[in-house]
Amino acid sequence: MRRNSRPLKRDHHEQNHLNSKLKLSLASCIFCKIIKGKVISSDLEQGYIDLALPQPGEIPSYKLIETDLSFSFLDVGPLSKGHALIVPKFHGEKLHDLPDEHLVDILPIAKKIAIAQGLADYNVLQNNGAIAHQVVPHVHFHVIPKPSASNDEGLVIGWPTQTFEKEEMQKIYEEIKQKL
Amino acid sequence: MRRNSRPLKRDHHEQNHLNSKLKLSLASCIFCKIIKGKVISSDLEQGYIDLALPQPGEIPSYKLIETDLSFSFLDVGPLSKGHALIVPKFHGEKLHDLPDEHLVDILPIAKKIAIAQGLADYNVLQNNGAIAHQVVPHVHFHVIPKPSASNDEGLVIGWPTQTFEKEEMQKIYEEIKQKL
Repeated sequence: MRRNSRPLKRDHHEQNHLNSKLKLSLASCIFCKIIKGKVISSDLEQGYIDLALPQPGEIPSYKLIETDLSFSFLDVGPLSKGHALIVPKFHGEKLHDLPDEHLVDILPIAKKIAIAQGLADYNVLQNNGAIAHQVVPHVHFHVIPKPSASNDEGLVIGWPTQTFEKEEMQKIYEEIKQKL
Repeated sequence: MRRNSRPLKRDHHEQNHLNSKLKLSLASCIFCKIIKGKVISSDLEQGYIDLALPQPGEIPSYKLIETDLSFSFLDVGPLSKGHALIVPKFHGEKLHDLPDEHLVDILPIAKKIAIAQGLADYNVLQNNGAIAHQVVPHVHFHVIPKPSASNDEGLVIGWPTQTFEKEEMQKIYEEIKQKL
């Protein structure tokens, strides 16, 4: 699939179909449910909140930072202590589906979370597509502390460097450059 | 090392030492040299540029997008065709060293590059610290196309999920939350 091959304008029928698909995504998306179910578990236990209980179908979370555009919380399947997710409130499947105003909100939150996690070593990762390790089809950024060099905790990275001849690099470069 | 344990105020001697360290980093940093040596190889070959030749010590690159705050180019040790780097012009080693104004500039560039790369599947990755796979100590974001599910090309990810009991998750949560 080449994204740049899609038609720039959509007809009425196609737009209706896409709108229905989006509504279905919003209704079933686990991250949309977490964003709606903004209950902090410790707040619940300490009685801070009594009005914001999640509605049926919504999901509570270990909420960290919330802004007008983004919501962040601890990953409940963490790679290390403090592994956090930052999720734009806008429902988009992949990074390129997000309007810029939502994109700019993310990294200052990642910085605050990294500082609060308190480790000098960490990875920021955002996956797009199942073969690229994306599990939930709603854009999310991982902030993953790396407590040690071990492959038993934190993000594990494999780096299969490719070798392209100078001519091929130049061709790849020109192809991308003309689409920018 | 816990970042949050560093003193909030620095004395004069300490500040001078840090300034010298920063100047040394700027002078030797390969990404600072690439940002200064803003020559596009195809522009050179096609004769578009004759005034912007890199000065001694500067390094040309396959430049993609440049803004006032950021510089992006093809990684010459790519994991897949089109693997690109986005580098803030501000010399900071890690994400949390960057002022927010530099952070907000990054992801809209990543989006443009991902669209120009033309693949639906890709990873956005930013590593902090040698044990987290950071090689150049100047913040950089990878935009890495994932052409196939194979471990022979694109980013390879290992996911060693940890199991924490509910009580431990709550404790981790409270520790982070109070530092936010």
